[in-house]
Amino acid sequence: MESNLRLACAQINCTVGDLEGNCKKIIEYIQKAEKLGVDIISFPELTITGYPPEDLLLKPKFIKDNLEKLKKLARNVFDIVTVVGFVDRQSKNIYNSVAIIYNREIKGIYHKMFLPNYGVFDEMRYFKQGTTPFVFKFGRVIFGANICEDIWHKDGPTRLQSLSGASLILNISASPYYVGKVKERENIIKNQAKDNSVFIAYTNLVGGQDELVFDGQSLVVDSNGKIIARAEAFKEDLLIVDLNISAIKTKLTEKTIMIVDKVLSLSKKPPIPPIPKKQIKSLEPINEIYQGLILGLKDYVIKNGFQKVVIGLSGGIDSSLVATLAVDALGKDNVIGIFMPSKYNSQQSKIDAELLAKNLGIKFITVPIDSILKVYLITLDEEFIGTEKDITEENLQARIRGNILMAFSNKFGYLVLTTGNKSEMACGYATLYGDMAGGFAPLKDLLKTFVYKIAEWRNKIKSVIPENVFIKAPTAELKENQKDEDILPPYNLLDKILHYYIEEDKSIEEIISSGFDKKIVLKVINMVDKTEYKRRQSPPGIKITHKAFGKDRRMPITNKYRINVQ
Amino acid sequence: MESNLRLACAQINCTVGDLEGNCKKIIEYIQKAEKLGVDIISFPELTITGYPPEDLLLKPKFIKDNLEKLKKLARNVFDIVTVVGFVDRQSKNIYNSVAIIYNREIKGIYHKMFLPNYGVFDEMRYFKQGTTPFVFKFGRVIFGANICEDIWHKDGPTRLQSLSGASLILNISASPYYVGKVKERENIIKNQAKDNSVFIAYTNLVGGQDELVFDGQSLVVDSNGKIIARAEAFKEDLLIVDLNISAIKTKLTEKTIMIVDKVLSLSKKPPIPPIPKKQIKSLEPINEIYQGLILGLKDYVIKNGFQKVVIGLSGGIDSSLVATLAVDALGKDNVIGIFMPSKYNSQQSKIDAELLAKNLGIKFITVPIDSILKVYLITLDEEFIGTEKDITEENLQARIRGNILMAFSNKFGYLVLTTGNKSEMACGYATLYGDMAGGFAPLKDLLKTFVYKIAEWRNKIKSVIPENVFIKAPTAELKENQKDEDILPPYNLLDKILHYYIEEDKSIEEIISSGFDKKIVLKVINMVDKTEYKRRQSPPGIKITHKAFGKDRRMPITNKYRINVQ
Repeated sequence: MESNLRLACAQINCTVGDLEGNCKKIIEYIQKAEKLGVDIISFPELTITGYPPEDLLLKPKFIKDNLEKLKKLARNVFDIVTVVGFVDRQSKNIYNSVAIIYNREIKGIYHKMFLPNYGVFDEMRYFKQGTTPFVFKFGRVIFGANICEDIWHKDGPTRLQSLSGASLILNISASPYYVGKVKERENIIKNQAKDNSVFIAYTNLVGGQDELVFDGQSLVVDSNGKIIARAEAFKEDLLIVDLNISAIKTKLTEKTIMIVDKVLSLSKKPPIPPIPKKQIKSLEPINEIYQGLILGLKDYVIKNGFQKVVIGLSGGIDSSLVATLAVDALGKDNVIGIFMPSKYNSQQSKIDAELLAKNLGIKFITVPIDSILKVYLITLDEEFIGTEKDITEENLQARIRGNILMAFSNKFGYLVLTTGNKSEMACGYATLYGDMAGGFAPLKDLLKTFVYKIAEWRNKIKSVIPENVFIKAPTAELKENQKDEDILPPYNLLDKILHYYIEEDKSIEEIISSGFDKKIVLKVINMVDKTEYKRRQSPPGIKITHKAFGKDRRMPITNKYRINVQ
Repeated sequence: MESNLRLACAQINCTVGDLEGNCKKIIEYIQKAEKLGVDIISFPELTITGYPPEDLLLKPKFIKDNLEKLKKLARNVFDIVTVVGFVDRQSKNIYNSVAIIYNREIKGIYHKMFLPNYGVFDEMRYFKQGTTPFVFKFGRVIFGANICEDIWHKDGPTRLQSLSGASLILNISASPYYVGKVKERENIIKNQAKDNSVFIAYTNLVGGQDELVFDGQSLVVDSNGKIIARAEAFKEDLLIVDLNISAIKTKLTEKTIMIVDKVLSLSKKPPIPPIPKKQIKSLEPINEIYQGLILGLKDYVIKNGFQKVVIGLSGGIDSSLVATLAVDALGKDNVIGIFMPSKYNSQQSKIDAELLAKNLGIKFITVPIDSILKVYLITLDEEFIGTEKDITEENLQARIRGNILMAFSNKFGYLVLTTGNKSEMACGYATLYGDMAGGFAPLKDLLKTFVYKIAEWRNKIKSVIPENVFIKAPTAELKENQKDEDILPPYNLLDKILHYYIEEDKSIEEIISSGFDKKIVLKVINMVDKTEYKRRQSPPGIKITHKAFGKDRRMPITNKYRINVQ
């Protein structure tokens, strides 16, 4: 059968607050699509404001500016149905909305009906829920537009719009990435399409925003629930699909808004060469995480106006992976590695760090810290008289390193990347204002065992991290012969406990009864619970798992919930 | 007319997560009230879990434990109606709830109907809304129980419960303090009582929890809207009032739950001497803030298991006020002041800091930082060759001080209090990992001009802060002849702009058009917007205003919303 509708999902990278820049990009994509004879183009959720705008939404001027941008945008839309996200306002209420624009007019507006208010989402803080699942008639095609969370609900607008005659649903999304999300999301969309016998075009945001990274991977699914097109992962893309939308399924209802009763383009405009259906393959699991890390890191750096980053290299796996990621995200000329040895650092650490830098082709600077440490100790000597050496002296070393990195940041405008992983963040096995000092923490949501896996995967593409980094036992090298395992259980054990406790919210009893040693479980969980204050002052990192530290997990600092396990 | 009901508001200081401790305290207060012949005693919102429990609520075991504690508590309740807050669960949903306990049984449960999800509140993240405004019959008295936000809504359960025959409303609250809140809240309650012709007993939480402080000031209001009793501010209290509740206003409805059809105590129990109505006067404005600061600080320190605090004293107004607050909250033996001079500190700074310490009677330690700074500069010299002196060298000094304070914290278990105020936090006029390093920031929500006012007020009670501290121009003393006003507008101007922009969410145009110089406004707002990343890593402080930094104001770090003012 011949196609009668050319559809485009414009998977663009918006920036929060950049109303001007986002609109400029929208127009570019519209123009690109027009040239390709597209009938309907849809953009991600809150296209104009970026997602999530958070408390910018409480500023009346921000809402007003976004409305003005929408109006201005509409004046630039001609013979192409444009489906774009914005914030609508009605008296004192605001709505997470989509506008349907055609021929220089806003033809209709839909308000998001299901507002996520869990995990990283706070939409009920800002928005009122929409109430009406409008459908729109464009030529012979009736379609419904809805927004992100809306499509996750069986009895949501997708069903209602289908029942009102829609044979095509345009869902515009800002669906943050985490491991497992892509599959989960695709299944939801496939089922919705099949259950309601509708085509679904799902346009997802792409890009990094503080703790979040949006993976794109926009989709078009046919009315049998089959994926017929998939856009790029973690990249901007314009996914174009020619559809053969069947005749109107049911008669028009009072919820139908007429856009134009025109004959559609493929049969009207000059013949347009068919566009082969693009179906990008899903990424394999580790690569998917890696690409997410790269985009999250890159966008944080660039969107915040930085160009170069500085990293404290220790010769360990964490800093090695962060440096590698940074090079892949920003290019080798924008990454500076600083090795800051003390007397506790082995010669091997220096060899490993230097070799890494050489393999990556980045600038490598050595700044020894012993003489600074010595003066601290002399200065404090009198006050600390009669006390034993303890964590104080170890933390001082980490803090001197933090200061040096920040000095480079202040002097040259570099952003400091911290190298801590999720296992350390969880157990508080990191020094506040020391190795935790920095603007962004790329590995914050990766357990140590994952750090190894990802580094191994990356090395297979091209070996940059020295083999020895994988072999040696993890150590902070803050005192003689120190090993992480002096304090922490072995990482392969620790990480499992952390996964259950943090990511699965399992209780101590449940974890113990699934086969872990009670003493170790209690020790680990005690570490996690008592170091909430450290995490509260940690830099943001990229959400990679179902539950990350940050706005995903809001634990009180003052908290006496301690379970006595008999 | 004779009283027929003895009512108690048990305004207690709960701790989040301390199920055991909170229940112990509940029982103590019940026993105290029983001895005084109380018929009905009510406790604050979420009495058993503490408020707000945040993501502890996502742990199924936590909910289960709280339910078990409630059951255990019920077994200890005899001839006194006990109204207590807890988390109820029904299948997969949880509710912010109140239990009505009598004679060892849970007689009824009410679920909060209005869930706040703005400002510092995230209740829709956790709870389902209740649907039924039950009323309870106890002897001849019909009463309704509802929870905090419920009473702020005209068409909320207070009205519905009154219409169902209640002549008494027990509202249990956890209403966080801010300037102006007490009056606002009292007006709401008075109007609700008057409009619905009901007595209202309002039991508020007291105590500090991370960023929040709850002021107590529980109230009993008669059915004409007159306050007939008021409990202490910022202190635990048991407010007892004898009421003459009129006969049942209307007949029972299907929403009525019978607790017991008994004759009420005052006519049944052995004669009990009347209790004079207690009506604590509201505090005067500055004192109210001061008491809030003291309680917020004290509870953060104590509930987190600390005893002593350490403060960097500079001889300036901020550190002087923080030290004074700490002494008032924790006692002079628990406060250590450290003066850390460099060559840029005037002799007068030392005199002022030392005199303050002497006046307060706290330990005073001097730790000079010049020799440490010198070694940093030598160490970095080669890398920084050809660069000018700039903020880098200033920040290094602040960070050395931060390290020294943290070294004392690590060595002796002191909590570091930071001394930054809201004006500094707003403009980013503070060094991350430097003077921002610490566990708690008591002045975080006080603009600089307020810091002065509060310090002046405190000095009037007993002069502890040296007069000179008030007179000299504010300076960070990080370079020769530095003054805050080199970078910032004068504080009396700056603070007004910050108030409008941050606390009132006014736009740049609105601020300019209310009579401020455009150049200054733009400069200030630019400083605020671009330093979000610093605030994200700052320690928690006490919310004192309508809008504090922290979970009250959730701005994106990555944010390109910049207005071009013509």
